[in-house]
Amino acid sequence: MADNKTRVTVNILGQEYVVRGTETAEYIKDLAAKVDRKMRQLSEDSALTTTQVAVLTALNFADECEKIKKEHQELLKMLEEEWN
Amino acid sequence: MADNKTRVTVNILGQEYVVRGTETAEYIKDLAAKVDRKMRQLSEDSALTTTQVAVLTALNFADECEKIKKEHQELLKMLEEEWN
Repeated sequence: MADNKTRVTVNILGQEYVVRGTETAEYIKDLAAKVDRKMRQLSEDSALTTTQVAVLTALNFADECEKIKKEHQELLKMLEEEWN
Repeated sequence: MADNKTRVTVNILGQEYVVRGTETAEYIKDLAAKVDRKMRQLSEDSALTTTQVAVLTALNFADECEKIKKEHQELLKMLEEEWN
């Protein structure tokens, strides 16, 4: 989300954030809702500070990314082997 | 990262976090390094608080996840159509 085409204000764990991106406002709001949901879930389970909750949320999404990437790469590799 | 098989202390933006997960310590450290890198990058570019940087980092990873998921689903759909 590097360019400035869309500028949308989202609310995450009671705090407003202005997010800029190339995607639609709807897409950015959906992302914010996912992050908000995960942060609320992690903050309910523990006595962590908001920063700690946000960092753990980032770790959770980074983990999810790695797993999908791996799955995607395995599928691509399988197809490559099949097509060669 | 729900279960407690691995317990590893990582350092993210100068703060220590104890992360528990089912993956290897190496995998968790790699994830933490990715989050740390993104947080340092975002905090260099702005006058944001650590919480804001962490939330924006979570949003960035959530965005990356969505894009890989979409790519993966499109590939699966394409294969499904081809194989039917």
